[in-house]
Amino acid sequence: MLTDATPPKPHERLATALAGDMEAVSALISTRMASENAPRIPEVTAHLVGAGGKRIRPLLTLAAARLCGYGGDDHVKLAATVEFIHTATLLHDDVVDESAQRRGRPTANLLWDNQSSVLVGDYLFARSFQLMVETGSLRVLDILSGAAATIAEGEVLQLTAARNLATTEETYLRVVRGKTAALFQAACESGAVVACAPEEHIAALAEFGDALGVSFQIVDDWLDYGGAGEAIGKDLGDDFREGKLTLPVIRALMRADEAERTFWRDALERGKSDDLDRARAILASHGTLEETRIEALAWRDRAQAALARLPQSDLRDMLADLADYVVERAN
Amino acid sequence: MLTDATPPKPHERLATALAGDMEAVSALISTRMASENAPRIPEVTAHLVGAGGKRIRPLLTLAAARLCGYGGDDHVKLAATVEFIHTATLLHDDVVDESAQRRGRPTANLLWDNQSSVLVGDYLFARSFQLMVETGSLRVLDILSGAAATIAEGEVLQLTAARNLATTEETYLRVVRGKTAALFQAACESGAVVACAPEEHIAALAEFGDALGVSFQIVDDWLDYGGAGEAIGKDLGDDFREGKLTLPVIRALMRADEAERTFWRDALERGKSDDLDRARAILASHGTLEETRIEALAWRDRAQAALARLPQSDLRDMLADLADYVVERAN
Repeated sequence: MLTDATPPKPHERLATALAGDMEAVSALISTRMASENAPRIPEVTAHLVGAGGKRIRPLLTLAAARLCGYGGDDHVKLAATVEFIHTATLLHDDVVDESAQRRGRPTANLLWDNQSSVLVGDYLFARSFQLMVETGSLRVLDILSGAAATIAEGEVLQLTAARNLATTEETYLRVVRGKTAALFQAACESGAVVACAPEEHIAALAEFGDALGVSFQIVDDWLDYGGAGEAIGKDLGDDFREGKLTLPVIRALMRADEAERTFWRDALERGKSDDLDRARAILASHGTLEETRIEALAWRDRAQAALARLPQSDLRDMLADLADYVVERAN
Repeated sequence: MLTDATPPKPHERLATALAGDMEAVSALISTRMASENAPRIPEVTAHLVGAGGKRIRPLLTLAAARLCGYGGDDHVKLAATVEFIHTATLLHDDVVDESAQRRGRPTANLLWDNQSSVLVGDYLFARSFQLMVETGSLRVLDILSGAAATIAEGEVLQLTAARNLATTEETYLRVVRGKTAALFQAACESGAVVACAPEEHIAALAEFGDALGVSFQIVDDWLDYGGAGEAIGKDLGDDFREGKLTLPVIRALMRADEAERTFWRDALERGKSDDLDRARAILASHGTLEETRIEALAWRDRAQAALARLPQSDLRDMLADLADYVVERAN
């Protein structure tokens, strides 16, 4: 029977190619998120882990290790580490942003309480460090603990830059690197390191992860003003209501007239307006949503150029397709 | 000129004996809590670090390493690690407990916001892992990352046990080990490990740290009902109002008549009574505050018995005095 099923997406093809590894990662995550003493921990974690998500970060670690010819199984531990760090930051982010929805479901802070989200996040951070210690690779530990610091620093920076109209593109990029690209980069780099890849391949994969992460986040920020809210499982205009200064807004502020500047001040600094339609109209009039999309494409190109420095392989091609897919969300 | 100055306390004598090391720890903490990108981080951290505290945990690490004959300087990194982990948990605890005061000053969550406390805590956790990775000792990494997991697990357990009158002494002890003893133990054990001490000395110091931590926490829980609020820089009756089931209450519940049980249920489970005087009178009538004090003394004895397995030295004697001092707060 003929069907018009859509072809599998790049991350789905990666998941298929790495199916055995991913099963091992899932099993490890289940084992390590358990806590005999505090059943609240697996409850909260399972709520998030069970909600799926594309598991792009562990896929990156596994793919990086395998395409560097790795034959061991420490990459499974690293992939689980990366997913634990990601889950921990999601739990804390939802507390910080006072979010009510994540991946199309109520957030843990809403279902349980902020306390549980903070402490279970801490537990997952600690468990992630235990896991990476088990690999016995000091270089990997250095990469991942550094990424954890960059993530937290980026989140603090985002917090203090929010509602501040003077936020520069440089600060924006630093926030993006912290909140998203640091872990993408560490996921790729640590996979290459555990595979004992040549230094130039490690550097190429680190650069790929960074650029992929930046492009991913820029698209996310674009979608918050331009995309369909349902498609990404979060509300349209979240950033706007939280007073976050993202790229389309920063560019529009540079060209704002007096009336527009007053609007942005009322909306972002003072939280006195939630007129998202007006915001979108202003962004459209200055063409900054389109500029933002183009910026994401430029980072996609950098990601693919880094990959081109690696030997050809199916996994490499899937990663290149993944970079395309990330920006295709913004069509 | 004669003065009636009180003799220095054991932790003050330790700080004097280890003055050079402690200066190095303070300098390292200042350097590593900095963040060029996010000035909020050193602001929040300095508020807590500047409030002093006795710095017992880093002193334990330094003393353990030195009394095992250590001549290097990795123990300084470990001591700073331990203090960072402690500071991070304080930041998160104050969010979880919604505390307004810590060390006699307004808490960070009150001065800034919960968001800053959560994220700066995350940053300090990450920085602590970076610091311990620099020691290059996988065994130390295993000890400290395990302690971090036990701490978070204990905090979650405390959260879920709060307002539950069925909480057992076994659960209470697990919470105490998590919230306090795990880090005391790891502080001592990692100091001995970095000094390459013989296994039996490492074990003795780990046991000392655990017992010291348990006795310290039991005294804290005693003080919450029996001590002078000002002396410990927190309000009397905090645990009572937060519905925490601590040892004096768990024991009193075992012997409660119908009226008392109703009182505890109203006060702890339902938060409908804040009659601390009544609570103290009930505890006194069953003698459970005195029993709690005696339990703390028993843990003090265990701590000192563990120390006795180490060769005699001035530092060892100061640690034994410290164990006495911890319980003397409950006089």
